[in-house]
Order: sequence, then C-alpha cells, then structure tokens
Amino acid sequence: MPDLLSNTIKMIKPLDEKAIAEARARQDMLTKPRGSLGRLEDLSVQLAGIQGKPIPELKQKAVITMAADHGVVAEGVGNWPQEVTAQMVDNFLRGGAGINIMAAQAGARNIIVDMGVAAVLESNPRLISRRIAPGTGNIASGPAMTMKQAVKAIETGIEIVNDEVARGLDIVGTGDMGIGNTTASSAICVVMTGKQAAEVTGRGTGISDEQLLHKIDVVNRAVTVNTPDPSKPLEVIAKVGGFEIGGLAGVMLGAAAQRIPVVIDGFISGSAALLAVALSPGLKNYLIASHISSEEGHGVILEQLELKPLLSLGMRLGEGTGAALGICLCETAVKILTGMSTFDEAGVSEKNEEDS
Amino acid sequence: MPDLLSNTIKMIKPLDEKAIAEARARQDMLTKPRGSLGRLEDLSVQLAGIQGKPIPELKQKAVITMAADHGVVAEGVGNWPQEVTAQMVDNFLRGGAGINIMAAQAGARNIIVDMGVAAVLESNPRLISRRIAPGTGNIASGPAMTMKQAVKAIETGIEIVNDEVARGLDIVGTGDMGIGNTTASSAICVVMTGKQAAEVTGRGTGISDEQLLHKIDVVNRAVTVNTPDPSKPLEVIAKVGGFEIGGLAGVMLGAAAQRIPVVIDGFISGSAALLAVALSPGLKNYLIASHISSEEGHGVILEQLELKPLLSLGMRLGEGTGAALGICLCETAVKILTGMSTFDEAGVSEKNEEDS
Repeated sequence: MPDLLSNTIKMIKPLDEKAIAEARARQDMLTKPRGSLGRLEDLSVQLAGIQGKPIPELKQKAVITMAADHGVVAEGVGNWPQEVTAQMVDNFLRGGAGINIMAAQAGARNIIVDMGVAAVLESNPRLISRRIAPGTGNIASGPAMTMKQAVKAIETGIEIVNDEVARGLDIVGTGDMGIGNTTASSAICVVMTGKQAAEVTGRGTGISDEQLLHKIDVVNRAVTVNTPDPSKPLEVIAKVGGFEIGGLAGVMLGAAAQRIPVVIDGFISGSAALLAVALSPGLKNYLIASHISSEEGHGVILEQLELKPLLSLGMRLGEGTGAALGICLCETAVKILTGMSTFDEAGVSEKNEEDS
Repeated sequence: MPDLLSNTIKMIKPLDEKAIAEARARQDMLTKPRGSLGRLEDLSVQLAGIQGKPIPELKQKAVITMAADHGVVAEGVGNWPQEVTAQMVDNFLRGGAGINIMAAQAGARNIIVDMGVAAVLESNPRLISRRIAPGTGNIASGPAMTMKQAVKAIETGIEIVNDEVARGLDIVGTGDMGIGNTTASSAICVVMTGKQAAEVTGRGTGISDEQLLHKIDVVNRAVTVNTPDPSKPLEVIAKVGGFEIGGLAGVMLGAAAQRIPVVIDGFISGSAALLAVALSPGLKNYLIASHISSEEGHGVILEQLELKPLLSLGMRLGEGTGAALGICLCETAVKILTGMSTFDEAGVSEKNEEDS
C-alpha cells in the first residue's frame, strides 16, 4: 500500500473518550429532561469524541462533490445521456444545482472536483481538476480502472481533504455526480455485503421496471466478469468502482485521520464508505449518515456499517444534498450543547428523583 | 360560537390549486431527476398552495411558545415540580432554553405567551401576558376550565397570531411549556381518537414504569369523571384541556385563516391540532408535522390527522423545538424551488424518455 494511504490509515485513532464523557455530562446539565433532544444529543457527543473537544466547533464547513463518468453507460443502464455529468458540473460552478442551494443554507463551501469526467471541462477557478482518466472502463465487460488508478483516486481524495483542512475545516460532507454511478455502487454493494444484485439495485435517476431488470443483469455481469475479492477493497474499486467513488473513500479516510467528522450523503457516498471502512474499520466512528435515500441498496449499506440515518425524506439526488442537510443538524446539535443554559445557570429546579 | 372564532373558521379556505400546479410544474423543470428531492419537493408545493403563491415566501418566521400550568400535577403524574413552568418561561426570556437556540438557527423570532402559569411572572417586554387563570383545575376530579375560558384560550391564540401577522409573518411554528401537559394531551387523545389511555400515555419528561401506570390511571379518571363529547371540541378543551393547548389550537386556526403555514411540534401541539381540525377540517392542509416525538400518543395523533412527520429524531422536549427544525426544512424546500436553475437555464440535457 502506498505511503500516503497507509500513513493516513495509521493516523485514524479511536474517538476521544474524555471529550465524549465531558460532552455527555454537559448535555445532562442543560435545562431539559435528559435525553429529550434525542439524537441531537447523541450527535453532539459523537462530534465531541471525533474532534477530541468537549465543546466541538463547526465554524468551517465544506461539502466535497466529486464528479466522474462511467463506461458502463454503454450498456444503457439509465435514461440520461453521459454528457449530463459535465453539464451538471457546469451547473454546480454557476450555482444552479441542488447542492449549491443546500450547501449555502448549511453555511458550507462547496468544493467541486473533476475526478474523471468524460468531456474536457473548461477551466474554472472554482473547479478542482484532478482527472484520472476520461471516465472508467465498462465494468460489464472488464475492470473500471487499473490498480494504480484506484490508488490514485483514493490518494487524490486524501489530498483534496488535506487541502481543505489547511484552509480550515471542522466538518465535511461528501457528494457525487456521475451518470452511471448507481450501477457501479450496486456492484460494490453486491461484493461488499454479499447481497443479491436485485436487493441492492435501484432506479437511479428513474428507470422503468424493464430497465431495472436490465440494470440488475448488468450489475451481475460486472461482478461475474471481474470477480473482485471483498477482502481487497482497492481491488474492488479498480474492478467495479469509479473515480469519484474512490476519491470519496479517500476524503473519508483523510478527514478521519485529521479528526474531522464526515457527513455522508446517499447511495454513492455509502458505497465509498463501505470501501473506506473496509480499509480502516475505525473510520466508522467518524461517519455520520445524513439520510436514507430511496435507492434500494442504501439501507443495506447503512445496516452493514451500523449507521442510523438522521433523515428519511425520500431523497435520491446525490451531489451531497443530503449531507448538507445533515451538516445543518450537526450545527443544531452543537449549538444546543454550547448555547443552552445549565440548570444552575438558569435557576431551574431539577426533577425530584433520579429514577429514569 | 363566538364571533372571532366562527369568523376565523369561515376564513379557512381550500389550498390554491393554481399555485400548487405552478409550483409542481417548476419543480419538474429544475435540474434534477423529477422527484429526486423527495419530500422537500412536496413541501415546497404544499407551501405554495397554502400561501396561494407559486413561489412561496418565508422571510418572516416565528415560533409561538405558549406556557400554562395544570392542576393535574396534584396527582403526582410527573417528576418535575410545578414551579419549573415559570422557571422555564424565565429561561426562555433569558435565551437559555432549547427553543431559543433552535428558533435562532431557523431565523425565527420566538414569541413567549403566558396563557396561565400558576406563579405570577415578572413583567418583561419579551413576555406576552394573556393569563386566563393561574393554572387549570385538576382534570382527575373535575373540569380543567369553564367553557368561557376555553373559548377565551382559543380566541387568545387567534389574536396572538393575528398580531404576528400584522408584524409580518410567512410561516409559524407552535410550541408549549407546561408541567403536567402530557397528561392533559393524553386525555384529549383518548377522547378524540378513541384509543385506550395505555396506548396514548407516555413518559413525558421521564417517569418510571410504576409512575406510568399511575399516569394512565389518572388519564382514565380524567375521561371518566368529565365525559367529554368528542363531537364538541370546545367542551373537550374545557373538560380535559389546558390554556396553552386551547391557545395553540387558536394559533393554528388563526394562521390558516390568513393562509400561513403552521409547523406543528410534538405531542402537545398535536393534541391542539386534533381539536383545531375538529373545529375546522380544512385546517389539516395548512399543517406541517415537523417530527414524531418519542411520546407514545404522538404517532396516533399524526395518523389520525394523516400527517407524515418530516423528522424522527427521538425528541420529546416540546417548546417548539421540533417545529423550529421543521421551519428550517421548509426554508430549504422553498430555496430549492426559487434558487435552482431549470434545464433550459442551465443548458442541461433532459432524460431521453418520459417513461418514469
């Protein structure tokens, strides 16, 4: 394993138990019945443990949206032409996409990375160009990429998040754009969870029943042709992954190595998380599942990762839109921990008994 | 029925179908697969129908938190002393409570109303004093209030929201504070849904198994002693309700009469909604359920009202905290509708077929 990746993995440590205990103790002193803010309380405590600070800070926020194309679109797995990947990147850069609106509401900067879009994109100061190749190979008939490219994708993700850390980063969300990437994610899901393709293949951007059967067949072919070994996550990325999926796995590892909480988006980010956690099981504690998408395989992934989504709004857009909402909830959680008065401060009586 | 209440009910009209159709048409032109933002899309369309504007506006936001005391605390239904109601109102006014933090994050002003706290509160420019009486009667042995007081509670809610409309109001959230008010809400729930007390009585601020059995017994006594008629919602408020519960029902009716969306909070707001919808079935379309609380009866109420909660975070604090989170999601929904580019504007190709 190359240095940057293996060093990053070595840097991922357990959560800070002292910060966790202190944050929990403070939550229990705040002017509300214990536990009455439910998962927001737990979230604040997890954030404390991740950052190693009893009072976590969420000033600098970013959503990293990685885009790439997928050779498997040649199989006709979806309804949208491949050029939409590039067009949507352009839309991100001009501020007209869902993620622009939702990252802005979360107070997060949106980092757009070209990890390997098929079309050559115009240079733009807001676009980070880290193209590995103009789209992956068709996984239905061969590997997505070489092992070298898989490593480069992950290491690029680590570098991207390290650059953001240098600019100041307290929390990061992950997002994706890539026509065809639900097919790759389903293949990853089959390999890493052992489920049947039919259980983890969904309608992506919206396909018919007949098209869904075809897509399931393509996923099965991708797994049969490539026979990826689930105990070798780098090989899984190379054989049935995607450049943005590898990149997002790198973002997750890089962030956790720097004790930065990672809010993951939907099915694509979830498949990246499966791979990243396979590379570093301790990463799991640094992940926050923003939502459960309506894409079939996403629930399977979250179950395998033992992550409970914060939101269930039937979203399936990707781009990091769910992650942006998740970051909003993290901010609420931290503001509660820092802003609410304790019983002593407010002069409010505590409950009569300690029996609950 | 007195004039203000009956006139308000008459003013509640069906949603604006033209605005709904226009908002839906715009959602379908935005640069995302149709329906891919799930419930946020539906929410934006509902808001358009409520406000009667294809592009709804959410500039002026408020959470109205109503506080009152409950004579039923004499039965020992909870662990917290009655003085906590007044102490928490003081905490609201000083900015140290959960609702202060969460309303601020939602960009909503927080309106604190004393509807009948047992203790006399110090005068404060931020406190709206509309005391009906210093707490209700003990519903386990008699009515909560007179019919006249019940009407006054509702009409006060209408007046409070009308005052806020005069200051500028585009969306309103409801919240409550009142030691003992989960017991009153459970009694309302039994009467209005026909469920058993055991099915709709929860642990409130946190009681033991034994205390829960006692609380269920108190709820049963309240219903047996008072025999409220579910077809007479004003009578139900008078017999087993609360001043803040009646007030919140009034806020809901008053807001809907002015085409203002109402984001309801948890179990207490839910019981107020049951009563308000019984007074005006058309109100239901104006209600947005922010979350489902961990209080047993809340799910029963939402089912009866056919409202699907946006969030499920195990919260049970009240005060309007869930409503504040719901307002944030409404704002996201509207920003998507107004801020995202259409396919034409962005030069993004639409999907190949119209088959999904």
